[in-house]
Amino acid sequence: MPDKAFKHDSAPQAPAREQLAETYLSVRRLSMQLCQPLEPEDFGLQAMASTSPVKWHLAHTTWFFETFILKPFCSGYRVFHTGFEYLFNSYYNSVGDQFPRDKRGLLSRPTVAEIYRYRDHVDKAMLSVFDSAVFESTPEISERTRLGCHHEQQHQELFFTDLKYCWFQNPLFPAYCDQALVNAQAVEPIKWQAIQGGLHQIGHAAHGEFCFDNELPRHLQHIGDIHIADRLVSNAEYADFIADDGYRRPELWLADGWVELLERARRGTPLSPLYWLQEGREWREYTLHGLLSLDPHRPVSHLSCYEADAYARWAGCRLPTEFEWEVSAAQLASSDDGQQDDPGQFLRAGRYHPEFGAAGKAGDNIFGRLWQWTSSAYSPYPGFKANDGALGEYNGKFMANQRVLRGGSCVTSRAHYRPAYRNFFYPPDQWQFSGIRLVQDS
Amino acid sequence: MPDKAFKHDSAPQAPAREQLAETYLSVRRLSMQLCQPLEPEDFGLQAMASTSPVKWHLAHTTWFFETFILKPFCSGYRVFHTGFEYLFNSYYNSVGDQFPRDKRGLLSRPTVAEIYRYRDHVDKAMLSVFDSAVFESTPEISERTRLGCHHEQQHQELFFTDLKYCWFQNPLFPAYCDQALVNAQAVEPIKWQAIQGGLHQIGHAAHGEFCFDNELPRHLQHIGDIHIADRLVSNAEYADFIADDGYRRPELWLADGWVELLERARRGTPLSPLYWLQEGREWREYTLHGLLSLDPHRPVSHLSCYEADAYARWAGCRLPTEFEWEVSAAQLASSDDGQQDDPGQFLRAGRYHPEFGAAGKAGDNIFGRLWQWTSSAYSPYPGFKANDGALGEYNGKFMANQRVLRGGSCVTSRAHYRPAYRNFFYPPDQWQFSGIRLVQDS
Amino acid sequence: MPDKAFKHDSAPQAPAREQLAETYLSVRRLSMQLCQPLEPEDFGLQAMASTSPVKWHLAHTTWFFETFILKPFCSGYRVFHTGFEYLFNSYYNSVGDQFPRDKRGLLSRPTVAEIYRYRDHVDKAMLSVFDSAVFESTPEISERTRLGCHHEQQHQELFFTDLKYCWFQNPLFPAYCDQALVNAQAVEPIKWQAIQGGLHQIGHAAHGEFCFDNELPRHLQHIGDIHIADRLVSNAEYADFIADDGYRRPELWLADGWVELLERARRGTPLSPLYWLQEGREWREYTLHGLLSLDPHRPVSHLSCYEADAYARWAGCRLPTEFEWEVSAAQLASSDDGQQDDPGQFLRAGRYHPEFGAAGKAGDNIFGRLWQWTSSAYSPYPGFKANDGALGEYNGKFMANQRVLRGGSCVTSRAHYRPAYRNFFYPPDQWQFSGIRLVQDS
Amino acid sequence: MPDKAFKHDSAPQAPAREQLAETYLSVRRLSMQLCQPLEPEDFGLQAMASTSPVKWHLAHTTWFFETFILKPFCSGYRVFHTGFEYLFNSYYNSVGDQFPRDKRGLLSRPTVAEIYRYRDHVDKAMLSVFDSAVFESTPEISERTRLGCHHEQQHQELFFTDLKYCWFQNPLFPAYCDQALVNAQAVEPIKWQAIQGGLHQIGHAAHGEFCFDNELPRHLQHIGDIHIADRLVSNAEYADFIADDGYRRPELWLADGWVELLERARRGTPLSPLYWLQEGREWREYTLHGLLSLDPHRPVSHLSCYEADAYARWAGCRLPTEFEWEVSAAQLASSDDGQQDDPGQFLRAGRYHPEFGAAGKAGDNIFGRLWQWTSSAYSPYPGFKANDGALGEYNGKFMANQRVLRGGSCVTSRAHYRPAYRNFFYPPDQWQFSGIRLVQDS
Repeated sequence: MPDKAFKHDSAPQAPAREQLAETYLSVRRLSMQLCQPLEPEDFGLQAMASTSPVKWHLAHTTWFFETFILKPFCSGYRVFHTGFEYLFNSYYNSVGDQFPRDKRGLLSRPTVAEIYRYRDHVDKAMLSVFDSAVFESTPEISERTRLGCHHEQQHQELFFTDLKYCWFQNPLFPAYCDQALVNAQAVEPIKWQAIQGGLHQIGHAAHGEFCFDNELPRHLQHIGDIHIADRLVSNAEYADFIADDGYRRPELWLADGWVELLERARRGTPLSPLYWLQEGREWREYTLHGLLSLDPHRPVSHLSCYEADAYARWAGCRLPTEFEWEVSAAQLASSDDGQQDDPGQFLRAGRYHPEFGAAGKAGDNIFGRLWQWTSSAYSPYPGFKANDGALGEYNGKFMANQRVLRGGSCVTSRAHYRPAYRNFFYPPDQWQFSGIRLVQDS
Repeated sequence: MPDKAFKHDSAPQAPAREQLAETYLSVRRLSMQLCQPLEPEDFGLQAMASTSPVKWHLAHTTWFFETFILKPFCSGYRVFHTGFEYLFNSYYNSVGDQFPRDKRGLLSRPTVAEIYRYRDHVDKAMLSVFDSAVFESTPEISERTRLGCHHEQQHQELFFTDLKYCWFQNPLFPAYCDQALVNAQAVEPIKWQAIQGGLHQIGHAAHGEFCFDNELPRHLQHIGDIHIADRLVSNAEYADFIADDGYRRPELWLADGWVELLERARRGTPLSPLYWLQEGREWREYTLHGLLSLDPHRPVSHLSCYEADAYARWAGCRLPTEFEWEVSAAQLASSDDGQQDDPGQFLRAGRYHPEFGAAGKAGDNIFGRLWQWTSSAYSPYPGFKANDGALGEYNGKFMANQRVLRGGSCVTSRAHYRPAYRNFFYPPDQWQFSGIRLVQDS
Repeated sequence: MPDKAFKHDSAPQAPAREQLAETYLSVRRLSMQLCQPLEPEDFGLQAMASTSPVKWHLAHTTWFFETFILKPFCSGYRVFHTGFEYLFNSYYNSVGDQFPRDKRGLLSRPTVAEIYRYRDHVDKAMLSVFDSAVFESTPEISERTRLGCHHEQQHQELFFTDLKYCWFQNPLFPAYCDQALVNAQAVEPIKWQAIQGGLHQIGHAAHGEFCFDNELPRHLQHIGDIHIADRLVSNAEYADFIADDGYRRPELWLADGWVELLERARRGTPLSPLYWLQEGREWREYTLHGLLSLDPHRPVSHLSCYEADAYARWAGCRLPTEFEWEVSAAQLASSDDGQQDDPGQFLRAGRYHPEFGAAGKAGDNIFGRLWQWTSSAYSPYPGFKANDGALGEYNGKFMANQRVLRGGSCVTSRAHYRPAYRNFFYPPDQWQFSGIRLVQDS
Repeated sequence: MPDKAFKHDSAPQAPAREQLAETYLSVRRLSMQLCQPLEPEDFGLQAMASTSPVKWHLAHTTWFFETFILKPFCSGYRVFHTGFEYLFNSYYNSVGDQFPRDKRGLLSRPTVAEIYRYRDHVDKAMLSVFDSAVFESTPEISERTRLGCHHEQQHQELFFTDLKYCWFQNPLFPAYCDQALVNAQAVEPIKWQAIQGGLHQIGHAAHGEFCFDNELPRHLQHIGDIHIADRLVSNAEYADFIADDGYRRPELWLADGWVELLERARRGTPLSPLYWLQEGREWREYTLHGLLSLDPHRPVSHLSCYEADAYARWAGCRLPTEFEWEVSAAQLASSDDGQQDDPGQFLRAGRYHPEFGAAGKAGDNIFGRLWQWTSSAYSPYPGFKANDGALGEYNGKFMANQRVLRGGSCVTSRAHYRPAYRNFFYPPDQWQFSGIRLVQDS
C-alpha cells in the first residue's frame, strides 16, 4: 500500500515546539496502544503483497523519522541498526534499494521487542531534536515531523485493514475486539440531496493547515447538477443486488471487472464483498469483532471499485466523480445543523466496524463511515508539483491505474477527515474499508 | 482490442441509399485490398491475446453486419454458418458466449477462402437490404451500417498494428511493403504554441456527422493556460533520453511503469520502444517496410504510456490532458493556413511508417502521424449514456484502467481524424502507433 | 516433444546404397503424403508448447539431414537458407541457439511452399550424396541417414498427435479423414497371461538392426512372476471407473496426479480422457475422423499416466514395469500362432483411431494399438553411453521426470514396433495415443 | 514435504510398555528442546509451500498421535480443539480436508503457547494409554506409537531444513547456533571402492526392527560391477566445477535441469548451491551457524539432483542407482574396522553443518553427512503394498516424479541411519541437506 504524502503550505505557521512534541508523542503512543490485543505471532503476518506485517508498519513509520529528519539534520544521531535502512524503506528509490515488498512477512527478525527498542531509540532522539537549536534553524524539521505524524496515522489505518485481511485467512477467525457488536437500527431509505453544478474550487484551501501534495493546487472544475445520496448503500440493499443475480449479469459490469469476476470464480473466491461468507442461505461477515451474522442495517463494506460501479448501474445511478464528491461534502457538512456526531470515535468506543450516522443527517454520513469509491482516476491536479527529493515519491508516482476514494472510514484517523483528502487504490482492491455513495444526474 | 463505438446523432440526416451503399462497398473492398501482400499462412497469426488474426478481423467485421443488421431486420436472411456467431463475437456478452480471445490464432478453419465467401454472402445480403423496403422503414439500418463501416475502419487499423506485432516475432522480419523508405529530412526544434485556458466545450459538436458515443455529450471543461509542442518527439530526441540513462532512473517513472520495466528486464525484453533493436551501438527499427536503420528524423513511435510519461518528465514537460489536447487541436488546425497536407495518404502512397508534417506547420502534425498519449484516464463524459442493447457494450464498459490517446496515426482511417475522437489503450501497451506530444504550463 | 534417438550397432551391415536411397525416398514421400488433407492454414497451428506446427515438423526433419550429413560431409553443399539453422533446430544446444519452442506457431514465414522447396533442395542433395564417392568413404553417412529416416518417422507420428490436439481446440472439430468409422464389435473380457519371472535380458539384441541408443546396452534385470492382461482397457471399462467416482476418490491417485486434477478443475478442464466430451449423459469423442459417439469397444486412449495408474489401482491391478512389459511382449508375440494381424495398417486402410486386435490373440494386441504407460521412470540402462557430439543430445538428456511407454500406437510407424523400443513422456501428458495395460502379481 | 511412512514387521516383538513410553517421551522432549534458540516470531515462518512453520511441525506431529491413536482407540479421550483436525492434517485425504499447505504461515493463531498446551494435553493422554488395558488388547497402539515417533523424528529433521531456508530469506542471516565452526582439515582425494555386482537382496531385512513400508518387500535386484567414491564431493571440488563453467555448458545437464537453470537466471537466483553467496571473488555460505566463509574441506551441500547429476557428468562419473548405493553401504559399513565415528552427534555436539568423517574410513562417510542423490526414481518395490486406511497415504502416493536419496544427513535422526532407508525429493529441490556420491562403472 502506497503511503499517501504531503505538501507543506507555502506559508506554514510553525506550531509551537511543545505542541508539536505533544502531537508527536500522542501519535507514536497510539501506534503502540493499537497493538495491545496482539500476540507476538500476529506481528509478522503478510497474506498478500499489498498488506504489510504489523511489525513492519511499526518499524517503517520509525524509519521515516530517522531517514528524513534524524539522519539529514541531526549530526550526532547514532543509527540504531544499519540494516534497517534497507529493510524498512517502503518504496523510496531515491533513498536506496528496498527489501522485496512481498517478502516482508519472512522477517522474523528483528523481533517485536527489538522494534520496540528501535521506536524508543528514535523517539528519544526526536524529543532531543525538538529541544535543540537545530530545530529553530531548520524549518524542514517541523514540516517533516508533521508529515511523519500524518504518515504514521495513515499506517495506523493500514494496521487495521492489513490485520483484518491476514486474520481472515485463518479459519479460527481471530477477533481484535471481544466486545459484542449490537445490531444497528433499521436504516431509512436513501434521500437525495440536490447539489448545484457550475464552476467550483477544488483542492485544499491554504489556511495553514496540513495537507498532502496531491490535494493541491486548488483549481477550478466545472460540474453539472446532481443529486447525491444522503447515506451509503446498506448491506440489505447490496444483498438485494446479489439476489437479483447482480454478479451474473455482464451488462452491469465494466469489462475489466467482469474478467476479474471470472478469475475469482476460477480461484474459488466467492462472488460477494470480501468478508461475506455464505452458510446455507445466511450471510455471515468477518469483522474485527469476529465472525458475525451479517447486519443488514450497516453500510456495505470491503467492495472493489468494480463492485461499487456495478451496483450503481444496477440501481440506475452512478458513482460520483471526485469533484462532485468534494463539492457535495463541503455543502452537506456546512448545511447540517452543526451538531454532527463525532465520526472518529472508534478507538475510544471500541467499535471497529462501520455503522450509519444519525438518520436524516446527511452531514453525519460523510466522514468516518467508509471510504467511498469515485469514478475518478487518480491523476495530478493541473499544475501539480511533487515535492523535491525523496519525499516527492510520496504521492505523485502512483498517479496511474488507481481510483480516488473520499471520506475516510471508521478506522481512519480523524486528522484525515476533510473534503479535499484524496485516497487511492486499484479498482480490484477490496481490503480497505470501502463502500458506495450513489449519485444521479439532475 | 476493444472496438470503439458509436452514438448516432439525435437528428440524423439519413444519407441517400446510394451514397451509403457506395461507402459500404468502398470500406469492404479496402479490407480485402489490404490483404493482398499476405500469404495464406499470415492470416492466422496471433502473437498475444490483445492482437487478433487478420482472418478473424475479416470475419468479425462481417459478423457485425450480420448480427446487428441482417439477423434482426431482414426476415429472409439465411445465416452463413451457425458456428460463426460464437467464433466471431468479440466481446458482446448480450449476444452470447465468445470463443476465447487468446485462442483465436488456433482456428485454422474456417480457411481464408471460406471467410472470403462469408464476406461475399453478407455483402450481397447487405446490398439487397439497401434496395429493399425495410431499409426505409427501419432507420436503425442506415445508422448501424454507418457504425459498421466505422467499425470496420477501426479494424483496418488493427490489421496493421496486429500484423506488425506478429511478424516482429519472426527473426526473418517479413515486410508488408517492399518499397524502400527514404530517410526523412532533419527536423526543426520544437516550437511552443500558446493555448489560452478557460472554460471550453469538449466533445463532438452535433452537426449530423458521425461520432462514437464516447465523444458525447458535449460539455464544459475548465483548463489552464499552456504551451503545446508543434510536433511530436523525434527518434533522435528519444535516443537522447535513453543515452541519458532514462530507463535506469526511477525518479522519472510512474511506480507502475517502473515495476513494468523490472518485469521487462526479467523477461529479457529490451528497454526501448517496442520495435527498436540494438546492434552494437546502432539502433535498428522494425517497420512494415522491413528492418531498417533507425531514422532519427521521424516521430518516435510504439511507446507505452509509461515511456511517454517518463520522457516528458525527463524533458521537464508533461503529457497533455485529453481536454487540453482537444482544445489545442481545434485551435491549431484552424489557425493554420488551411493548406495542410493530406494526413491520410498512407494507402495511396504506400507509406506505412510515421513521418513529420511540413516544418513550421503545427496543424500538419496533429492528425495522421501517431496516436498521442494523454494523461487522462478513459472515463465517461458527464451525462454519458451508452447505447441500448448489445451495442451499448461497444465503448462504455472499457472505461476503467485505460488512457485516452488522441490524433490518429499513419495507419488510421482518415474518417477518424477529428479533434473529438477518443482512442484508448492500457498504459503498458506499445503495439499501437503511439507517440509523444509535450505540453508545458504557461 | 523430444526426438527419440539412435545407437548404431557396433558392426553395422551397411545397406546397399540403392536400398538406403529407396528407404530415404519412401520416408520422405510419406511425410508429404500425410499432408494432403490439409489446408495451408493448418500447417502453422501450435496449441501448446509441447506440440509443433506441421510445417515445422516438415522443416525440422529436413534440417536434420542438412545439419548432420550435408553440412559436415558434403563439401559442395549450398545451404538453402542461413536462417533455418536457428529456426528449425529443435533442442541441439551443441549445434547452436534455437528459436523459442513455444513460439513456433508464430512463424508464418517461411511459407509451406518455401518449405516444400527446402525439402526438394535437401532431397536432391541427399540423392547426389548416395551416388558420390564420399558415401563409401564416410560410414557416418549411411548411419545417420538411417537415423534420420527413423527420426522422420517419429515426427510422422507427431504429425498426427500434434494436429489432433490443435484441431481439438476448434469448436468446428475438423476431421483429418472423412471416411466413417464403424463401431467395433463387442470386446471379450480380459484374459490373464502368466509370465514367468527370473533373470531376463533387457534391451535391444545386437543383430545389426537399427535401434536407438536408449535401448542399449542389453543387460540383466530380475522380475517376479506376473499375470498380464491380453488386451488394453476399453472405453466401456474406463467409463465404469468414471461412473464409480474414480476422479473423486483421492485414495486412487498418486499425490501429484491428484494435484493435477485439482488444477484441471480450476481451469475448467473436464475430468476424463483428453478427447472425451460429455453431452448430457452421453460421451462423445473427438477423433481424426471427427467428433463421434464414444465407441465402448475400443481401447481407451489419450490418458495421462496418472489416469492410467489410478484406473489400475481401482481395478485392483497395477501398471507393468517396462521390464515386465518387454519380457511379456517378447513371450506373447512368439507364443501366438504367428498369424498376427498387421499392426501398422493405418495408413493403407485410412483408420486413424485405435481398435482391438483379434479376440483371443494376445500377440495381436501388443503393437499398433496404443502406447502403454509403464510404472518405470525413464532412466539410463546400466552402462548407457550417449553418442558423441550433438547427436548425443537425442535421447540421454531427457532421462528425468518422464515415464516409459511401450508398444506403439495406430499412428506409429511400423518400423518402431519392437519389444525393446522405449518411448517417454511426462506423467501428465495426454495428447499422445496412450492407453492402459494391466498386470497383477502372481 | 511428504512425511515418510512405515511398515510394521509381520511379527513385531512389542517393546515393553516402559521402553515405549520412554522412547515416546524422549522424542517428544527433543522436539521442544530444538526450539529453545527460537523467538516466538520464528515459529510461523513459511518461505515456500514446501516448507512448514516450526509451529506447524510441533502441532502436526501431535495431531498424528491424536488422530491415529487417541481418537480411534481411547474412548474417553477429549479432543483438544475441534478445529485442529483440519488445520494440522498434512495430506491425509482419508482423514478429511486440509488447510491449504501454502498458507500455513498465515496461522498466527493458535499461538506457540497454545500449541505447547496441545502437546501437553496429548502427551498426558498418551501416557495414560500406555498404562491402560486397551494398550494390551490393541496392538495397533504400540505399532502406531513407534510409527509416530519415527514420524516426529522426520519432522525434527524438517525443523532444521525448513528453518534454515526461511531464515536465509532474511538479510540479517540469523544463526541457530552461535558456537563458531572451525574450518575442517584438508580432505584427501577420493579413493574408489570396488563393489562386486550380481544378484542382491534389496530392501529392509525383517529382523523385527522398525522400517517404513517403502523399504519393503525385500527382493532381488541385479547390479553390475562398480567403483564407488569413499567420500562425498567437497566444496573445493564443486567450486572447480563452477570455475570450469559447469553452469554454462548445456551438454553437462539433463534437459529439465537446463530449463531450470534458465528460469533461475530469469529470477535472478544465483547459479550455485542454494546457500552459497558470491562476494567479489569469494564464496560465502549461509549455515545454521550464520553466514560464514565457504569452507573448502567440507562436503558440498544443498544441491538439486540436476546439479549433482551435472557435476557427476563433468567429473566423468555418474550417480549411483539406489540399489548400487544400498549394496555399497552395506559392504562398506561392514568392511570397516567397526570403530566408526558416531554419525548422529550433531545435537550433543552442537554442530549443524556437514563435515567429512575420518580420512580413509569409507564407512564413516556413509551416514550422517548428507543425503546422497541417486539416479533412481522413487518407485514401489515389486510387490509393494501400502498400509490399509489413512496411513496408506504415508509413502505410496508420492511414488511419481521424485528421486531417491540415501544416507541421512547431519540433521537426520540417528534412528534413520540404515542402508535400506529411502528418502525422496523432487529433482529441483535444494533445501534439504543433500550432496553428491560418485560412482564409476568397473
